[in-house]
Amino acid sequence: MRITLIYVGSTSDKFYLEAACEYEKRIGAFGDFKSVCIKEERLENESSQALIEKALSLEEQRIKAAIPKGSAVVCMCIEGKELSSEGLAKYIDDCGGKGISSICFIIGSSHGISQSLKAVSSLKLSMSQMTFPHMLARVMLTEQIYRAFTIINGKNYHK
Amino acid sequence: MRITLIYVGSTSDKFYLEAACEYEKRIGAFGDFKSVCIKEERLENESSQALIEKALSLEEQRIKAAIPKGSAVVCMCIEGKELSSEGLAKYIDDCGGKGISSICFIIGSSHGISQSLKAVSSLKLSMSQMTFPHMLARVMLTEQIYRAFTIINGKNYHK
Repeated sequence: MRITLIYVGSTSDKFYLEAACEYEKRIGAFGDFKSVCIKEERLENESSQALIEKALSLEEQRIKAAIPKGSAVVCMCIEGKELSSEGLAKYIDDCGGKGISSICFIIGSSHGISQSLKAVSSLKLSMSQMTFPHMLARVMLTEQIYRAFTIINGKNYHK
Repeated sequence: MRITLIYVGSTSDKFYLEAACEYEKRIGAFGDFKSVCIKEERLENESSQALIEKALSLEEQRIKAAIPKGSAVVCMCIEGKELSSEGLAKYIDDCGGKGISSICFIIGSSHGISQSLKAVSSLKLSMSQMTFPHMLARVMLTEQIYRAFTIINGKNYHK
């Protein structure tokens, strides 16, 4: 299984980078993992809804260009479906069972992901009803993908 | 408001320590925050339910000794109530309104928190239906407490 994680906006927080790297390295034992950073559109704090949507639309174009062909697309959003760790493992395993060999997870900017991209995704996924900084969400999701592979492969990690 | 975060078991992962420290420092601008590490009972991977319960009971004694008197106790557990970030802010703010000046959050070991401690808590709180390593849960919770204070104080952080 090939997993791609596309996230919008970089971070200067070293601890997030190191934590994400650690789980990316571990996922490598189970599958082909790649993370792709997409440039975030700059917005003022009090931007209008129209400006926010324009920024999301520009980010959508860059995200779409980075999605590997034939991927099942999973958009991370707070209104998405909440799955347990076992539920995410089942989703990934089921994709494999259907002959899908590439899954692409997308974490948007602090303003989220465009409605049109969410509309065409295979799954809208929520990790929490709480709002987390998107770089912490990246660490959380990378850990969950690693955890999913340990569940699928019966490894001693998940409790 | 005085906030205490009791967590069971330490970590050698530097990135988790650094991330938790960063949010602890930021919370300091709003209230008195203290985190307390409780020794985790060692258990083999295939321990019986009886041995797990004994360990949880020993950890409970240490946790109880560390809870500041008069605190509202919040136990983190996957079956708890899911709140949004605004919901957690409201809970903290409401405690203040009721004259409660100390809230104590508890993150158990990888086996969780004893049933008897959960039974006497003011709130059982879940951040996700997913299972996270407890040191990542500590970072997530510390960030949410910081976020709650920025919401209560109308600061420009939460989106």
